[in-house]
Amino acid sequence: MGNVRKAFGVDIGGTNVVIGLVTENGDVSDVKKFQTKDFNEYRKLIDALSVYIKSFKDECIEGIGIGAPNGNFYKGTIEYPANLPWKGITPFAAELTEKCGSKVFLTNDANAAAIGEMSFGAAKGKKDFIMITLGTGVGSGIVINGNLVLGSNGMAGELGHTCIIPYGRKHPGTGLRGSLESYCSANGIVETAKEFIAKFQSHSPLKFFEEKDITAKLIYEHALKGDALSLQIFEYTGELLGKAFANFVMFSAPSLIVLFGGLSKAGGLILNPAKKYMEENLLEVFKNTCSIQLSGLPEDDAAILGAASLVFQNVKN
Amino acid sequence: MGNVRKAFGVDIGGTNVVIGLVTENGDVSDVKKFQTKDFNEYRKLIDALSVYIKSFKDECIEGIGIGAPNGNFYKGTIEYPANLPWKGITPFAAELTEKCGSKVFLTNDANAAAIGEMSFGAAKGKKDFIMITLGTGVGSGIVINGNLVLGSNGMAGELGHTCIIPYGRKHPGTGLRGSLESYCSANGIVETAKEFIAKFQSHSPLKFFEEKDITAKLIYEHALKGDALSLQIFEYTGELLGKAFANFVMFSAPSLIVLFGGLSKAGGLILNPAKKYMEENLLEVFKNTCSIQLSGLPEDDAAILGAASLVFQNVKN
Repeated sequence: MGNVRKAFGVDIGGTNVVIGLVTENGDVSDVKKFQTKDFNEYRKLIDALSVYIKSFKDECIEGIGIGAPNGNFYKGTIEYPANLPWKGITPFAAELTEKCGSKVFLTNDANAAAIGEMSFGAAKGKKDFIMITLGTGVGSGIVINGNLVLGSNGMAGELGHTCIIPYGRKHPGTGLRGSLESYCSANGIVETAKEFIAKFQSHSPLKFFEEKDITAKLIYEHALKGDALSLQIFEYTGELLGKAFANFVMFSAPSLIVLFGGLSKAGGLILNPAKKYMEENLLEVFKNTCSIQLSGLPEDDAAILGAASLVFQNVKN
Repeated sequence: MGNVRKAFGVDIGGTNVVIGLVTENGDVSDVKKFQTKDFNEYRKLIDALSVYIKSFKDECIEGIGIGAPNGNFYKGTIEYPANLPWKGITPFAAELTEKCGSKVFLTNDANAAAIGEMSFGAAKGKKDFIMITLGTGVGSGIVINGNLVLGSNGMAGELGHTCIIPYGRKHPGTGLRGSLESYCSANGIVETAKEFIAKFQSHSPLKFFEEKDITAKLIYEHALKGDALSLQIFEYTGELLGKAFANFVMFSAPSLIVLFGGLSKAGGLILNPAKKYMEENLLEVFKNTCSIQLSGLPEDDAAILGAASLVFQNVKN
């Protein structure tokens, strides 16, 4: 059975770097986790990864796939990452290849998630879909006619930074106003909660928390208990998400939008308004052509699966 | 030189239907124009086109390309056209093929324009660009990695109907609120003029026209003469266009946006604010990666060239 294809998947995140061995069937093993803050320089991470990879000398590996913030597929570079300890443009893929002799494919984390979803998850068999990751930020990976959209600069698919409310909230990281990420991320929903608490007369228990203690999880728990204000916060977040989705659908006509990440765990609380407002804002010919579903990948392994799928997609079997 | 490839290009518009013979070098000849209103049924237009096409029995034609409102490339149908005398879904391509024995390719007019621009115009050699037609409405054709984006339903690329101002103007045709088309089309700019005339203290000569006499052309002429209100109307239109473009760029990362159609003739009046506001609203990694240019196609033949290019693109040489 030596013929099962294998690759390493690497997920570089703001908190952890995780590496695992993935088969073409989607089996994940040998997962190792590093703390991102331990690498004040990217070369130290490359060293740690290659030591680990080389310890599998008996395994026949087709390559290494990496999902990283601001990953540029064409150049294999990580460019100006906001949440990593090192800055600037780093030739991550090239240097990792040099160190361990394997082919390395690198793209941004949401793109990797999209490929993973197409290989193993909810988008299996789909040729046109959009992956939206609703975490601390909002990321996206766009697949058109079976191919990841990379665009002229290799950085396409930054839907979290598109403007949904002109002159809206200023994003602390980008300086852009009214972006999807400013409203529909974990941070965004907390901002909405603060606004709604200040704005609406309400007996919501949320009013008794200090601002610093309000989290997406807290709002979710109160929504589950039936707190009207918390429900309203989710309804509003889903409404904005759905309206943004309508714009995306009229761009590339996907048959599916897949949601992944912390905020998507709110399930119907966010899915139902998103579906409703997406449909309401679509041109007739697009109505009922695109469904919204939660990710079909196991949460712990999703990023690694996605990253490794880059290898299976790009290395000819 | 009987080896030059040839195809018919057909442009079906609300006012005229135009057909012409096009070579792979972009030469257009034998142009014939019909009035759209003369065809109360689509089959009458098919009859008229096939009579004309059959009269070229000595020409070796590779096929017929058609650009039509709401044209579906996959199905060869025209679906619920707003401005044509017939309604519903009509199997236009299949019936024209049956009548005259040629291969027929049909897509929406802005998609055809995009292919034309890639074959003969400003987008020659570009793999990632977006065509925006600024006419009575706002149309779009999106090219990613050298391929027209059609999407899961064959109708992708309706950027004119994306929302740019939540709860904004209601579009009389679609019922959608705040769409790009409601602001940045010839009709949209007239609406803006009416609003600005009512809203701003001004000595603009526009104030002395009856509402029904205000046209995009009139505003343009007054802007050229230096009328501050008319200039402000163009600045606002360009601003909205530029902000919408920023969103499009963060979707597919085109290296070029090509403008075509009546309103684009305003040139710098609309291009300059569009460029400025696009750049201002882009994420850092996209700044200065996308230019905005006017169409490189001769105005009279652009639609026919685009439609015929569909044939050259899709028939293997």
